[in-house]
Amino acid sequence: MSAAWHKCIESELESVEMVMISDLESQNPELTEMCRYVISSGGKRLRPALCILSYLGSGGRDPSIAVNIGAAFEIIHSATLIHDDINDQGTVRRGRKTLHLEHTVSKAIIAGDFMFAVGFRLLASEAPQIVGFVIDASAAMGAGEFVQKDFEHVSTVTEDDYIRIITGKTAKLFEAASKSGAAVANADSDILEALGRFAFGIGLAFQIVDDTLDVTGDPHNTGKQVGTDLLEGKPTLPTIYAMQDPVYGPELISLFEKEAVDQEDIIRALELIRSTDAISRCLAKAATYVEDARHAIDPVPDSEYKQALLGIADYIVSRDR
Amino acid sequence: MSAAWHKCIESELESVEMVMISDLESQNPELTEMCRYVISSGGKRLRPALCILSYLGSGGRDPSIAVNIGAAFEIIHSATLIHDDINDQGTVRRGRKTLHLEHTVSKAIIAGDFMFAVGFRLLASEAPQIVGFVIDASAAMGAGEFVQKDFEHVSTVTEDDYIRIITGKTAKLFEAASKSGAAVANADSDILEALGRFAFGIGLAFQIVDDTLDVTGDPHNTGKQVGTDLLEGKPTLPTIYAMQDPVYGPELISLFEKEAVDQEDIIRALELIRSTDAISRCLAKAATYVEDARHAIDPVPDSEYKQALLGIADYIVSRDR
Repeated sequence: MSAAWHKCIESELESVEMVMISDLESQNPELTEMCRYVISSGGKRLRPALCILSYLGSGGRDPSIAVNIGAAFEIIHSATLIHDDINDQGTVRRGRKTLHLEHTVSKAIIAGDFMFAVGFRLLASEAPQIVGFVIDASAAMGAGEFVQKDFEHVSTVTEDDYIRIITGKTAKLFEAASKSGAAVANADSDILEALGRFAFGIGLAFQIVDDTLDVTGDPHNTGKQVGTDLLEGKPTLPTIYAMQDPVYGPELISLFEKEAVDQEDIIRALELIRSTDAISRCLAKAATYVEDARHAIDPVPDSEYKQALLGIADYIVSRDR
Repeated sequence: MSAAWHKCIESELESVEMVMISDLESQNPELTEMCRYVISSGGKRLRPALCILSYLGSGGRDPSIAVNIGAAFEIIHSATLIHDDINDQGTVRRGRKTLHLEHTVSKAIIAGDFMFAVGFRLLASEAPQIVGFVIDASAAMGAGEFVQKDFEHVSTVTEDDYIRIITGKTAKLFEAASKSGAAVANADSDILEALGRFAFGIGLAFQIVDDTLDVTGDPHNTGKQVGTDLLEGKPTLPTIYAMQDPVYGPELISLFEKEAVDQEDIIRALELIRSTDAISRCLAKAATYVEDARHAIDPVPDSEYKQALLGIADYIVSRDR
């Protein structure tokens, strides 16, 4: 990935990688290896990018502090992915076996805890005043996961429920990353809040697109995992919209409510969703959030960094993987 | 429990309870309830006590800061217990159903993460300089758990391996609690290190006694869970010592190496261990650590708080539950 928005912070994003590797080194070789396995599997580094660009876009002059904080966000994000994969019994993450399959559930829980702790150490050592942002995000993450669990296989789930889920899952940590960058640049509160609203909005859009991509791929194409959310009974926006369809909705509802679905069911459910206008409605909804987010950062003075933030916003709705 | 060492910090320990309850309150009622369930199930509050007594024993004058830090330690400790119980497939904790049985594994992982985050927030907001102590402890915890997992049902485990396990499991967090209390009281480094060594040593003794109590109870007495470590194949000092016995060792080794043990096996293994001198050797070993710990705090000036710390040391080797 070498999207244009990467260009102006390329060296900073490289530093993020180095900070992550050195901070996750421990006396235990297997633990160190597990952490490397997780962070080396790629990922878009959107949270570090939001943090660093918000810092520079707010007039910050020494990006090294934003680099460290950005690395902390990526480490905390990775920790949550490890635990999420255990919770969802996920088998593949970013094209590789999930950590708990590779190293046992027990060790993966511990590794997640360790990464969580390392992320907090980095944050607290760099800027104790921003730890609160991340805690808010962590609490929301927990709340979102709770809502998601409560609505597994429950077809009465609403769009509002879904927004609560993805607020915790994605938007709050995006928001915290941007606000943290702005805060350590001593941004005025209106700038800080504007950047927070921007990141929150593109976070919602990001997750909607992510969930839409899970139903638009080809299930026969083994290289790509599709329909995993359906397999787990997770309520996502494409499914919620499609269940509202007068023609295809009822059959999809019965499939969604089924506790033990097989591959046939998934293929049929995907067909049903694609037969409705759910996917275009989802993409339109994501586009609306991005549009609002673009306006939210009007108070931020123009700069190449602001342009890069807008570039991330555009990337989020145009990406196909 | 109203041991004498509690007396001089009774109001502080009550404040610890209140801080925990208010800090663990979140917008999600189930999450709040889960956190309360965990912290209300009792526990000896040894980590808060070590923190507060180390603070006061180092000349600190405003215990409220040590109360908050002590609460953070207890919250972080509770978070690790939740995840440990999942890892060990534990069913009972402090006489009640474990959290993951009561609320599902997924929600328990999330609740543990949440408590971890709240604990770090408390620490970082009170005294960012001590976050490092807790991170060291967290890393050691992970390392200890890794060693423990690696030696499940492995009879070649040594006393040194066991010490590495309990260093991470217990001693490092005890040490961090005492050092943190001393640090926020601006103790001289020799006092701080002395308190750290003291807490580390009684932490080792505490865990040895804990593991010994797991084999000295009566397995027919259903009110008390005994032999759970053996059931899980966990290497503990009584088992390690007993496996060295020329007469009873070989049969115990074969039981310990068995992956799927039943109740009969446990009862037999307990009989074998009790037929050796393993239990008295364990208690003697714990007493040695406590004795060394008592000497370690020689540099700390005498006070009722130092006496209370010594009282905790004595309690640890004399307790029967």
